[in-house]
Amino acid sequence: MSRDEENGAPPDAPETIDHETRATETDHAALRLWLRLLACTNTIEAGLRTRLREAHDCTLPRFDLLAQLHRHPKGLKMRELSRRLMVTGGNVTGLTDKLVAEGLVERHADPGDRRVFTIQLTAKGKRQFQKMAQAHELWVVELFSGLDPQDKAQLFELLGKLKSHLVGPR
Amino acid sequence: MSRDEENGAPPDAPETIDHETRATETDHAALRLWLRLLACTNTIEAGLRTRLREAHDCTLPRFDLLAQLHRHPKGLKMRELSRRLMVTGGNVTGLTDKLVAEGLVERHADPGDRRVFTIQLTAKGKRQFQKMAQAHELWVVELFSGLDPQDKAQLFELLGKLKSHLVGPR
Repeated sequence: MSRDEENGAPPDAPETIDHETRATETDHAALRLWLRLLACTNTIEAGLRTRLREAHDCTLPRFDLLAQLHRHPKGLKMRELSRRLMVTGGNVTGLTDKLVAEGLVERHADPGDRRVFTIQLTAKGKRQFQKMAQAHELWVVELFSGLDPQDKAQLFELLGKLKSHLVGPR
Repeated sequence: MSRDEENGAPPDAPETIDHETRATETDHAALRLWLRLLACTNTIEAGLRTRLREAHDCTLPRFDLLAQLHRHPKGLKMRELSRRLMVTGGNVTGLTDKLVAEGLVERHADPGDRRVFTIQLTAKGKRQFQKMAQAHELWVVELFSGLDPQDKAQLFELLGKLKSHLVGPR
């Protein structure tokens, strides 16, 4: 008899451990859907985090920051960058300091207001991000390869419907 | 002319700021799907986080910990609880200490190995969790109400297909 059985805990070792395992039979359909959505997102995110670290010694917040700057070639203000990354200003500041030290991004003071800084990718930062982004896209393609093109299109559409309800009318 | 326009940044103020705004026209379908999935999950999670804090002064990790214990009435070992919550043992320990102090959970030493602890909800903890869980479920229903029952069933099925590919054969 294992210690788990002695304690009366369910012998659940072979079960997948994620948010969805919290759902019980009686839970509402929306709750089961939410826990499954959360489980998928967390599994994919964890997979990307591991691959980025192993292949490029890069964290997810660092990748996200570079991705936002790559999308805005003329640069972003610190305030705007923080908002887009949905983290505290402090974290973005620390991360930016490191990237500046590595020569991947530059900080420009605003001529009109010396307290305002714009952050921009350097040529080196752009090259390094593009290499990672190519690998990242291949990993995403692989992680979603359980769905055929029609499934993917349908999922994209359903999530679009969900998202427009979440964001609300503007 | 706004400062954004002076700096040459795209005038993107009215745009929704989330992970999906990182996707550009040329991105692969799987990448666009991933960024939309991430945007939906983050928006719902942020909505639940705010509601839990405002209505029950409760954080998401605290709610998740109580939910796991509620699902395992006989209790969970610290190690198992940490694994299920996918956070470091340190965080779970600190959170558990607080919940013990508030009388919501109990810690039992294993008779066979005094270094091993099982964590269990108290009657008070169970009552408090059930009240929050009811509210939480109503919020989830509301957040997903942009989808009709058929959409929800279809989304559940597609995510199931995605998930079984992610988890792989066993």
